[in-house]
Amino acid sequence: MSAYFNDTFIAGEESKLHVADLSIQRGYAVFDFCRTVNRKPLFINDHLERFFASAAAMHLPVNKTKEELIHIIGQLIQQSSLPEAGIRIMLTGGYSPDTYTPAVPNLLITCNPVKTATEADFEKGVSVISFEHQRELPHIKTINYTMAVWLQPLVKEKKADDVLYHHNKIITEFPRSNVFVVTKDNRLLTPARNMLKGITRKQVLSLAAAILPVEERDIHREEVYEAAELFLTSTSKKLMPVVRIDDIVIGEGKPGVITRELYRRFLEKEKNQ
Amino acid sequence: MSAYFNDTFIAGEESKLHVADLSIQRGYAVFDFCRTVNRKPLFINDHLERFFASAAAMHLPVNKTKEELIHIIGQLIQQSSLPEAGIRIMLTGGYSPDTYTPAVPNLLITCNPVKTATEADFEKGVSVISFEHQRELPHIKTINYTMAVWLQPLVKEKKADDVLYHHNKIITEFPRSNVFVVTKDNRLLTPARNMLKGITRKQVLSLAAAILPVEERDIHREEVYEAAELFLTSTSKKLMPVVRIDDIVIGEGKPGVITRELYRRFLEKEKNQ
Repeated sequence: MSAYFNDTFIAGEESKLHVADLSIQRGYAVFDFCRTVNRKPLFINDHLERFFASAAAMHLPVNKTKEELIHIIGQLIQQSSLPEAGIRIMLTGGYSPDTYTPAVPNLLITCNPVKTATEADFEKGVSVISFEHQRELPHIKTINYTMAVWLQPLVKEKKADDVLYHHNKIITEFPRSNVFVVTKDNRLLTPARNMLKGITRKQVLSLAAAILPVEERDIHREEVYEAAELFLTSTSKKLMPVVRIDDIVIGEGKPGVITRELYRRFLEKEKNQ
Repeated sequence: MSAYFNDTFIAGEESKLHVADLSIQRGYAVFDFCRTVNRKPLFINDHLERFFASAAAMHLPVNKTKEELIHIIGQLIQQSSLPEAGIRIMLTGGYSPDTYTPAVPNLLITCNPVKTATEADFEKGVSVISFEHQRELPHIKTINYTMAVWLQPLVKEKKADDVLYHHNKIITEFPRSNVFVVTKDNRLLTPARNMLKGITRKQVLSLAAAILPVEERDIHREEVYEAAELFLTSTSKKLMPVVRIDDIVIGEGKPGVITRELYRRFLEKEKNQ
């Protein structure tokens, strides 16, 4: 496992930050995460565009171009012998002299084994609970997952796999995934604001356009409870059916036909990248 | 500058965390911060009690007792030749195998020079702006200062020194300080909820009880605009007059008499610790 730190390739074990870094002092950093298929980074342009947008929104300059980052990531993948790798590109607030003011950012890129959802995971689906919470600066991919990690014991206690945030009953997103609803009259709904726009979400929206009407808009939790199908999307989970939310079984507790068709087309797309 | 990492004293330069640590991956960590007076840690019992409370609230076990931490901190202060030191005690979510689930926490204690507010700073006071924001899990001292750091360019643009958060016009706290209002009829007000209860705040409440009526309750922003005196409290700023908020001058733009008397008593108290 190798990594890249600022301007140098380093061993994975050496991927360390001094405690003065603003990520450790104040949780101030952005990142993006992609995975490889056929030893190539999937949707890398979209991921890097979002990474640059996150960095700019957090007032953190990136001292590399997109092309330079693609080159570095390519070398990391080549150096590793991983059939499937997860690439994490991180930019922090840097070594702050007063532990508060951003300094020259630290850039850290790691390449590690990644566990993605299998077709067996898809068939099983996941159970979720809903929870009132609005993430701070939701359109920026910061490292702030305080609430998500903090909620893990509750999720476990409720025998669920994940948590769907809502604010005043309007659903927004999972901590690391986007949410999609298939209505009983065969429309596809997904939130349009107060959440992070996922790269897999973008692909699904594009694939869905050929299949059924799509609406990006506010969705009330009641519409989720009455959904014909419900699924989430993320880089590592791909498309994943949600078969239960807050003790309400969705569909017949199995992946729905629309979800399955979108999943099939998505797998096709990533295979042919 | 020396430090302590898990079970070992280390050099300050060696105070590093591997990127797998949940503080870097997900901003998941708690800390507390105290300073020395006469080479002794000020209000150390209160700081450590809050540290243990923060750790417990974040489901992070501390593998040291309060007495052990006091002993380690004492040794760090002794090893350093600093007349005034800042002690940061930090507990992270640990080296997470899946970058999401908390593991065995990492404990990191650092001892560094600290810059505290001087009497000249007190005489000058600070200017602030108000901003709509409610911190997540505000009663826990997490490392999540994303919003505070993100707001720095705005604070600077407004020629202010700090930002006072309010939620639906009810003021709560500054990112790193508590807020106090002296009303025109000589009562002392400070928020009671949705904020972190500071150690200096506790001292000020205790000192104020002998001087004027004190109310811990919700405070509307309008009450701040109409204040006779306004000040903030924190470990490094001690008591600091706020002489302007949102372009409204408080008092005559100078430290008020109550603020000054509380400040005098506070300095007396810390000197005699």
